[in-house]
Amino acid sequence: MPKQGLRYAAKVDLKKEAYDQPYLHNRWHPDIPFCGTIKNGEVVKIQCVDWTGGQIGNNDSADDVRDVDLTRVHYLTGPFEIETAEPGDVLVVEIQDVQPLQDEPWGFTGIFAKENGGGFLDEHFPKPAKAIWDFEGIHCSSRHIPGVRFAGLIHPGILGCAPSPQVLATWNEREGALIQECSHMGREVALPPNAHNVHVGSGDEALKAQVGKEGARTIPGRPEHGGNCDIKNLSRGSKVYLPVHVKGAKFSVGDLHFSQGDGEISFCGAIEMAGEITVKFSVMKGGVAHLAMKSPIYIPGPVEPQFGPGRYIYFEGFSVDEKGKQYYLDTTVAYRQTCLRVFEYLRRYGYSDYQIYLLLSCAPVQGHVAGIVDIPNSCTTMGLPMDIFDFDIRPEAKAEKRELGSCAFASS
Amino acid sequence: MPKQGLRYAAKVDLKKEAYDQPYLHNRWHPDIPFCGTIKNGEVVKIQCVDWTGGQIGNNDSADDVRDVDLTRVHYLTGPFEIETAEPGDVLVVEIQDVQPLQDEPWGFTGIFAKENGGGFLDEHFPKPAKAIWDFEGIHCSSRHIPGVRFAGLIHPGILGCAPSPQVLATWNEREGALIQECSHMGREVALPPNAHNVHVGSGDEALKAQVGKEGARTIPGRPEHGGNCDIKNLSRGSKVYLPVHVKGAKFSVGDLHFSQGDGEISFCGAIEMAGEITVKFSVMKGGVAHLAMKSPIYIPGPVEPQFGPGRYIYFEGFSVDEKGKQYYLDTTVAYRQTCLRVFEYLRRYGYSDYQIYLLLSCAPVQGHVAGIVDIPNSCTTMGLPMDIFDFDIRPEAKAEKRELGSCAFASS
Amino acid sequence: MPKQGLRYAAKVDLKKEAYDQPYLHNRWHPDIPFCGTIKNGEVVKIQCVDWTGGQIGNNDSADDVRDVDLTRVHYLTGPFEIETAEPGDVLVVEIQDVQPLQDEPWGFTGIFAKENGGGFLDEHFPKPAKAIWDFEGIHCSSRHIPGVRFAGLIHPGILGCAPSPQVLATWNEREGALIQECSHMGREVALPPNAHNVHVGSGDEALKAQVGKEGARTIPGRPEHGGNCDIKNLSRGSKVYLPVHVKGAKFSVGDLHFSQGDGEISFCGAIEMAGEITVKFSVMKGGVAHLAMKSPIYIPGPVEPQFGPGRYIYFEGFSVDEKGKQYYLDTTVAYRQTCLRVFEYLRRYGYSDYQIYLLLSCAPVQGHVAGIVDIPNSCTTMGLPMDIFDFDIRPEAKAEKRELGSCAFASS
Amino acid sequence: MPKQGLRYAAKVDLKKEAYDQPYLHNRWHPDIPFCGTIKNGEVVKIQCVDWTGGQIGNNDSADDVRDVDLTRVHYLTGPFEIETAEPGDVLVVEIQDVQPLQDEPWGFTGIFAKENGGGFLDEHFPKPAKAIWDFEGIHCSSRHIPGVRFAGLIHPGILGCAPSPQVLATWNEREGALIQECSHMGREVALPPNAHNVHVGSGDEALKAQVGKEGARTIPGRPEHGGNCDIKNLSRGSKVYLPVHVKGAKFSVGDLHFSQGDGEISFCGAIEMAGEITVKFSVMKGGVAHLAMKSPIYIPGPVEPQFGPGRYIYFEGFSVDEKGKQYYLDTTVAYRQTCLRVFEYLRRYGYSDYQIYLLLSCAPVQGHVAGIVDIPNSCTTMGLPMDIFDFDIRPEAKAEKRELGSCAFASS
Repeated sequence: MPKQGLRYAAKVDLKKEAYDQPYLHNRWHPDIPFCGTIKNGEVVKIQCVDWTGGQIGNNDSADDVRDVDLTRVHYLTGPFEIETAEPGDVLVVEIQDVQPLQDEPWGFTGIFAKENGGGFLDEHFPKPAKAIWDFEGIHCSSRHIPGVRFAGLIHPGILGCAPSPQVLATWNEREGALIQECSHMGREVALPPNAHNVHVGSGDEALKAQVGKEGARTIPGRPEHGGNCDIKNLSRGSKVYLPVHVKGAKFSVGDLHFSQGDGEISFCGAIEMAGEITVKFSVMKGGVAHLAMKSPIYIPGPVEPQFGPGRYIYFEGFSVDEKGKQYYLDTTVAYRQTCLRVFEYLRRYGYSDYQIYLLLSCAPVQGHVAGIVDIPNSCTTMGLPMDIFDFDIRPEAKAEKRELGSCAFASS
Repeated sequence: MPKQGLRYAAKVDLKKEAYDQPYLHNRWHPDIPFCGTIKNGEVVKIQCVDWTGGQIGNNDSADDVRDVDLTRVHYLTGPFEIETAEPGDVLVVEIQDVQPLQDEPWGFTGIFAKENGGGFLDEHFPKPAKAIWDFEGIHCSSRHIPGVRFAGLIHPGILGCAPSPQVLATWNEREGALIQECSHMGREVALPPNAHNVHVGSGDEALKAQVGKEGARTIPGRPEHGGNCDIKNLSRGSKVYLPVHVKGAKFSVGDLHFSQGDGEISFCGAIEMAGEITVKFSVMKGGVAHLAMKSPIYIPGPVEPQFGPGRYIYFEGFSVDEKGKQYYLDTTVAYRQTCLRVFEYLRRYGYSDYQIYLLLSCAPVQGHVAGIVDIPNSCTTMGLPMDIFDFDIRPEAKAEKRELGSCAFASS
Repeated sequence: MPKQGLRYAAKVDLKKEAYDQPYLHNRWHPDIPFCGTIKNGEVVKIQCVDWTGGQIGNNDSADDVRDVDLTRVHYLTGPFEIETAEPGDVLVVEIQDVQPLQDEPWGFTGIFAKENGGGFLDEHFPKPAKAIWDFEGIHCSSRHIPGVRFAGLIHPGILGCAPSPQVLATWNEREGALIQECSHMGREVALPPNAHNVHVGSGDEALKAQVGKEGARTIPGRPEHGGNCDIKNLSRGSKVYLPVHVKGAKFSVGDLHFSQGDGEISFCGAIEMAGEITVKFSVMKGGVAHLAMKSPIYIPGPVEPQFGPGRYIYFEGFSVDEKGKQYYLDTTVAYRQTCLRVFEYLRRYGYSDYQIYLLLSCAPVQGHVAGIVDIPNSCTTMGLPMDIFDFDIRPEAKAEKRELGSCAFASS
Repeated sequence: MPKQGLRYAAKVDLKKEAYDQPYLHNRWHPDIPFCGTIKNGEVVKIQCVDWTGGQIGNNDSADDVRDVDLTRVHYLTGPFEIETAEPGDVLVVEIQDVQPLQDEPWGFTGIFAKENGGGFLDEHFPKPAKAIWDFEGIHCSSRHIPGVRFAGLIHPGILGCAPSPQVLATWNEREGALIQECSHMGREVALPPNAHNVHVGSGDEALKAQVGKEGARTIPGRPEHGGNCDIKNLSRGSKVYLPVHVKGAKFSVGDLHFSQGDGEISFCGAIEMAGEITVKFSVMKGGVAHLAMKSPIYIPGPVEPQFGPGRYIYFEGFSVDEKGKQYYLDTTVAYRQTCLRVFEYLRRYGYSDYQIYLLLSCAPVQGHVAGIVDIPNSCTTMGLPMDIFDFDIRPEAKAEKRELGSCAFASS
């Protein structure tokens, strides 16, 4: 009994606006209606738009990045009903393949303006910037960051099942508390529900209003369902185990990345793209109890790009900030310092700070929690693969400034 | 011209007390006298005691861990004069081999009592505990944690050059400021200089008094020189690039580990041992400016134990603590949650919490900074290699409680 | 300047007979006309039929394998003119991607009847047999060989540039001499030119007649141009360096494999499929002299499926045949013995000999020349990855006979 | 109950002649007396002399290689009685570590004169030559082959259990038949028993005479017990499964290698050394039947030196010899051609043929049986790791002749 080619559970249309497409939605909420049904054990293809829903163009200006409307993101495909799935089950999602759309072999990495989205290093590099990447089979390269080329570790930035009303209430409560608690900080620390630009697939205006009030934003990953984990290793061949909170699971997926570094430091830091994902769904009955699961787990696939361990340069960073202030086991500070060490190293070759910021966000750098107990310093490391450069970056090699062009900037 | 066997730059004597051995010291200070001279380009062997200087025994009680005297640690071998090295140079240290002492094929992992040292999870697991590991060539196993066995990624926890007086002053100032700032926290956040049990090699009493007042404690790694980084990948064949701050470099090394997991979460969390390290020293003149170096960098060796990517189970954790409190991009909280997720998973097989705590500290787990921009949640992951267990821990396999004995506990 | 989607240098039509398609040919000859032109530096997609041109169906009978017409194979796509390429140059072929055709996610592995094609073990297993494989993204599985599943190391079995008249004459002469020399052996040792079923793309009858007389068969790889090397590692991201013998290179490609083991022992032993390959062509002027090249070289891509080294069982074989006859450094005999050792091992689980033969041909087994100097015995090894089986095949595990169905056999 | 340091089951004395040491022997024979007893489940250390028993010196002349006495080799340590082992059992040998002797951090690679030992390419390179390697922890380098340095994949060339009288008779019969059959070839094709220089450990003269007549030479590996397999991957952490033929197993080991390439092409082609091996023995009762075992199998350890797949250059070779003669599926011819392709490539950098021959014998090159069914050509490949060179050997890089010194040659 020969198998047929796979069916598409959803297709997208890049010529239409994302908010006009019924297979898409941009908030987490249990009441967003199913956009289709998938059998337990079935394999399907699902198409996704890029996370901004087409706001960013393949061009040499970062104006679109500067002006990005973050109330619209992320556009996810779904939610799908997975037959037989019920609360307490685990949905096993095997990612059989991820591909860019056939006629769209490109993606983008963005640095958001500090005042519109920001990123991990926005205090240091506040301007918007952008790099376009061309896909060459499994590899990519960018006219905006010459001298590098690498194989993508292609993956979805977001996948998860819808929250139950209780889970959603928990999210809103605890993030609301944080917003209150941090009101003195003068920066956004979390994003509350926002009715502007809510899209609920085929849902009606009443639902839109409700989701506008209650629906969780898609920016953060959350322990109860995963969501926007931005884990670079959820690539071809990997298996993800997701807790189910509502009948039918209401699985959604989107935010496809051609590649990403650990941390995705520039926030729009992966190589963002529209694409399609091939997934197999299996329901593990009672899996949450069986696996004692509070947050998703996953097993990577066997085809990660491999560099020998001796082909990485590792940079160390500690929880002492650039002004010399000592923090107590603050791993976030340590990782920021680790990133800055790589900037200092790569500047020597002629890269601009914004090119480096873009590069460290999307290239397959390895970010490790090295030591987290030696008070008061956390120590983190970042491994930079030498083989993505077309010149020799070993410490022993001469570091000459090169003509390395420019990334895209905004017109003002 | 055949080469001879290598010379020992320093040997230790496990039958003598650490504080009686002139090749050892236990503070960072520029005035601790050289214990020997090594040529630029030379390869030597250096022996080290375990970090506690022999306070912990190969037995089945954790009383010694409970009673450990932390004013004595870490005993480092050195400082060595590296000929031609001067401030502004980089000392390139190639770790050609690391071995346990020939007749001491064992090591220990400890969980310190919350009130004496503590660790990353001391709020959850406050009691002292211990596991002894027997070395079987490249592998190790423990009578206190049955069911696991793995190849060590053997490395020094500490290596670095002495601080200059200026660097030392900076350390004391900024850590002092933190201690003041956090006095309300009711826990040690950093360790100020402490005259008790100071050991300065062959230095005299006057020096001892001075170092007692000024000498930096060896617990934290620090950005300016590395020190106690506890980076598991500084193993056989790796190369470390260290900034030089004083004439002759004053290089010290110690705290050898047979294996460690990313984070070394239980603080005495590696498999601690006495041993010897074979190192080649080369001076890169003006290397600090050439490499734009603010903190050490390193390149791992080519013989890391390899598990296929598909042989890891990855656990996700987020910056929401176990009471449901939301933190703003707090990667330390996220990593603690990630660890707790592994506890919940491994308990199902019959391991006690303390066994798991010991195991995650020393087994080659991979700790990654997955996402650090999706406000308010940091996401970290921990990869647990399946192949270190002698039973099947895949999520699909049945999880049966086993008879898995006990780690060592204190008598009270 | 955004790039567009890639152009197809050639598309195939699976509904038409292969011998009616002008982009295909099935002999090597310098006079087969170009089917298109590709720029130096260009990236294109090229579609290919399966090597038999559609003779084998997705069904449960091996009648088609039994009756395969080997005068028709291999159908290659090409030859393409590569602009600026001239004799003495090296054509650098970067394989950016290889994929099955979108709507044909399946392939086949065949064992040819001893009297029609045969294979490496045809003295032992003379019957025709077949397995159909279904593709699941990067993985594949077969209803005919239950219990295994693996990621494909997808690659073209054949790629090369056309021979010059001189090179072609050399081939015909030396293979003709072998045929004569071995006429006593009672088996085909090489395939001379054969006019039956010759296909020369858009060439006319006169050319067909000439190529029928002179054209080299596509079965063997040959040192001067590569051709049918069946090297499993020429996969995504690899780079092949091919000597150019005629103006314009006349590059052809085909015989796509979803996966193959080292040796491809059953002859139709890979997972054969129709598909498309994305390639970048660059001409290295004077490359043959520059690289001192007599045969192609290649550099693998970075995304090979990875199993840890400790997840292979290696079997040893020596140049003593199954009747106890000793051979002098005969590596072919040694490799056959190595294969037989794996049969003996896998039979214990309930697999039939023909299932094992099919599996060892197409799964990613590693075949090594271990020792070739210890007279009189060559020693070869085969590494069998444990992780392709869904049960535990370690030597320590119990070996139970399972119900493992059957591969497809012929009706008579 | 703490474990003690390991006991030595045997120590060697490099100051004494090998033939005077009772722990050594140099033939396979069931009657050579046990040199010690090891418990089932025990871990011990065993020291070994280099395979020639000290005939080769750490100097710059190959006179010793020219004059080597091959009737004396290999000196193995053993045979050991493994308690409870009986015919039909499998002896599981876990190689926990392999090390050079503490004060002898060097080894040698030799090319034997064609008329005294020869090698895989002796028709091309008939002269004796030598390289001395200095060990630098896990790495090695040679004053005779500048420009390369690599981590050793350290292993025993020989390990196995003694043959039973029946097995021994089989060996003598089948190898004798080959010698007769090939008497026209004018070269040694196998080595019959030879009484000259027989060493039987503590055995008496009568035994010596008997073993001189019947004892199997140690040069070839043999399917029934393994023996001199020269498999580079039997390194730290690997597990070998050996059939037992006599009561007590009579296990012997020797011929330690610091590193070797697949094929060990120059015969004395590994980096030969004296050293010590740490092994754990376990008896698998009835293992021969349980595993359906005719020849040894093994599972490699997890710490093989790793280069990324994209850091190898692969060379292809076919069964057409350098005179243009076509062979029928002759994999030995193909592998010889593959080797020659690497010579042509490396000569461009200034290496002499003898340096290359030595290098390809001992560096960690990967030799694969690529295709063995495409009549008439076998295709083999050799993967050369780029990272062992301290200059850039990629095809794209400029190939300049360097001053690369010379290996050691004989005085006449």
